Amino acid sequence: MKKITDTEQIRAANRKQIIAALRAHGPLARVELCEITGLSPATVTAITSDLFSIGFLKESSTTPEGHQGRGRPKVNIDLNSEAAFVIGILPSVNQLEFVLGDLKGNLRETHKVAIQLDRLDEQQFITLVIDGINDFLAFTGIDRNRLSAIGIAMQGPVDSDAGVITWSPALSITNVQICQPLEDRFNVPVGIANDSDIVALALRHLNNYSHDINLVSIVLGQGVGMGALINGQLYSGSRGAAGEFGHVKFNLEGPQCRCGARGCIEAYCSDYALYRDASTIMHLPSSDNHRPTAAQMQAIIDELDSGNEALQRIFEQAGRVLGLGIANLVTVLDPERVIITGAGVHGFPYMEQSLKRAMSESLLPNHSTDMVESYSWQEDLKATGVIQLSLERGD
Amino acid sequence: MKKITDTEQIRAANRKQIIAALRAHGPLARVELCEITGLSPATVTAITSDLFSIGFLKESSTTPEGHQGRGRPKVNIDLNSEAAFVIGILPSVNQLEFVLGDLKGNLRETHKVAIQLDRLDEQQFITLVIDGINDFLAFTGIDRNRLSAIGIAMQGPVDSDAGVITWSPALSITNVQICQPLEDRFNVPVGIANDSDIVALALRHLNNYSHDINLVSIVLGQGVGMGALINGQLYSGSRGAAGEFGHVKFNLEGPQCRCGARGCIEAYCSDYALYRDASTIMHLPSSDNHRPTAAQMQAIIDELDSGNEALQRIFEQAGRVLGLGIANLVTVLDPERVIITGAGVHGFPYMEQSLKRAMSESLLPNHSTDMVESYSWQEDLKATGVIQLSLERGD
Repeated sequence: MKKITDTEQIRAANRKQIIAALRAHGPLARVELCEITGLSPATVTAITSDLFSIGFLKESSTTPEGHQGRGRPKVNIDLNSEAAFVIGILPSVNQLEFVLGDLKGNLRETHKVAIQLDRLDEQQFITLVIDGINDFLAFTGIDRNRLSAIGIAMQGPVDSDAGVITWSPALSITNVQICQPLEDRFNVPVGIANDSDIVALALRHLNNYSHDINLVSIVLGQGVGMGALINGQLYSGSRGAAGEFGHVKFNLEGPQCRCGARGCIEAYCSDYALYRDASTIMHLPSSDNHRPTAAQMQAIIDELDSGNEALQRIFEQAGRVLGLGIANLVTVLDPERVIITGAGVHGFPYMEQSLKRAMSESLLPNHSTDMVESYSWQEDLKATGVIQLSLERGD
Repeated sequence: MKKITDTEQIRAANRKQIIAALRAHGPLARVELCEITGLSPATVTAITSDLFSIGFLKESSTTPEGHQGRGRPKVNIDLNSEAAFVIGILPSVNQLEFVLGDLKGNLRETHKVAIQLDRLDEQQFITLVIDGINDFLAFTGIDRNRLSAIGIAMQGPVDSDAGVITWSPALSITNVQICQPLEDRFNVPVGIANDSDIVALALRHLNNYSHDINLVSIVLGQGVGMGALINGQLYSGSRGAAGEFGHVKFNLEGPQCRCGARGCIEAYCSDYALYRDASTIMHLPSSDNHRPTAAQMQAIIDELDSGNEALQRIFEQAGRVLGLGIANLVTVLDPERVIITGAGVHGFPYMEQSLKRAMSESLLPNHSTDMVESYSWQEDLKATGVIQLSLERGD
């Protein structure tokens, strides 16, 4: 363990708070920074002065609200988005994606490499990632000194404390110690999280949800993922295995799930389950049933739009299962809000009514279906999430 | 908001850490305190010196492990259990209970008053509690200056931030602002929590579980309660309504629950549900079905012990429902451990096998049924929990 004095730890924590407040609410006057963070004016002045000296802050052209009258005009301060950058890495089955984020959390550049990651051994995988980061830095022209952190979003469970990929559908190797080699090579902190978990971080970054302390995100698509912020922090459980909402059992005699069990929520609501059910009652082009394509799922949505009632009933049933699952989650976790997103959210309008009806049947009086919202999906949400993860490490 | 400088806040947080470490692991040498808390030797010396000066610490007669050789013998330090006391208050349907805890968290005295709380209006209830605390202080001979905090454990949801009882089966009044009047009167911090939640605090206080960061407790009895420690903190949700595990729906066409819905876990596994099912297949003395007595539940256990197979099947089914409910909880929350306790744990041996079988069917590979344990019930567990709650406020 590095020897750090208590004062340094406190200063680092206060600095994080100030950067986070500016990122969420900036530009801000110093007095607003004091109000938001609860820190004393002296502390805010000392830390912002340090941050100015390293170029992290700049004066903002907007003046504080309510400023009027004579005398010296007060200025707002804001993060200088160019002062530092983070790199996010999103490995998936046939692809390795790199994203560049700036100090304000903006997604600046994206680079995707088509590659079958499941053919690599551990050393090959780590080398590929390191080379990819170097190439990406060179390509974007970002000086290595301005790189402040790296984040990795993995499909499957991770041990975020140890920086280890437990296992992933994207890889054939398991228990991969990925963070340490990257830290050693680039000399910046490296964070790792599950790729559904980081969607919750991305959603919080969006203005509407920035005040939610307990927030659950549900990601519909190839599976049914979940992320949770608990007391404002990403929660990943004692083994990095929290949030496997898709494998909550709805009915043990229900449809077959990919995990081997029957009646998991995913076996009703994921793309493969909806495609399987749809192809049982109507003619659809045959597909790799494990992963229907976006075009194949769009064909189903088109058929729903054209009024196919039998197909609509499949989505209504999926909505009901999802609604009861969410109601049980809310009964146990009592979050501020549950946000449904993911590529599968395109079909959500055909699930929404039955989902809310099922929730109404099942919720206790403290809760209402209003806490559930859908959020339109862009792939950028994962990129934004991994940037947020990196920034939390780097600040 | 009180104006507190950052340094004072930090000092208070460090002080809490040191007291908590001594309470969980004391007596300790100063060097061990540094290791456990991560604080610097200078900080530990400064804070323990303060704590000695107000009488909170004493030197312990045990010497640190591994001490040998010549020179000045090092001494351990420990909390002085007599230095401060807390009072816990446990209101229930026909009773108001007061408990006294010392600085080390020991339960020292208990006083129960039989009274129908649901006949009182808000002012009467608050006056009753204040008078009761004064009487209890007088009776126990504790000087009011040594009272460091008060804690309240309520049946039903509470808003612990605002210090409000949302509603409770013990009261006919709702939204009772209870903490503020007590703080004003006794000039100590007052905390409030749900009475199932505090069982998790009590269990952590017991040695075996003191290192568990994420811990779920399930309380079987009149209902099925749940408490959760998340990242070491009691988690009560965004509306104080988390942990209503008993009202997670197992089967919407299942047995009637007291809450009005059908098929809640409680409608299979609580005392009233087990008594109702048992009395359907065998002759049992008629009872207030809502609250079978301990003696009535014991009669059922005796019948189980004598080999009544039909009755055993009822408990097996309850175990199966509980096991699937816990498996779903684990799939979402991934806690270190799930501990089953409560008055209803007497019947647990007849549920355990089917519970573990159902869990095995339903868990993902990351989890094993070993994480579930039962813990023998004493009413003291709630008293210990409310003392822990108070101490967290008072330190």
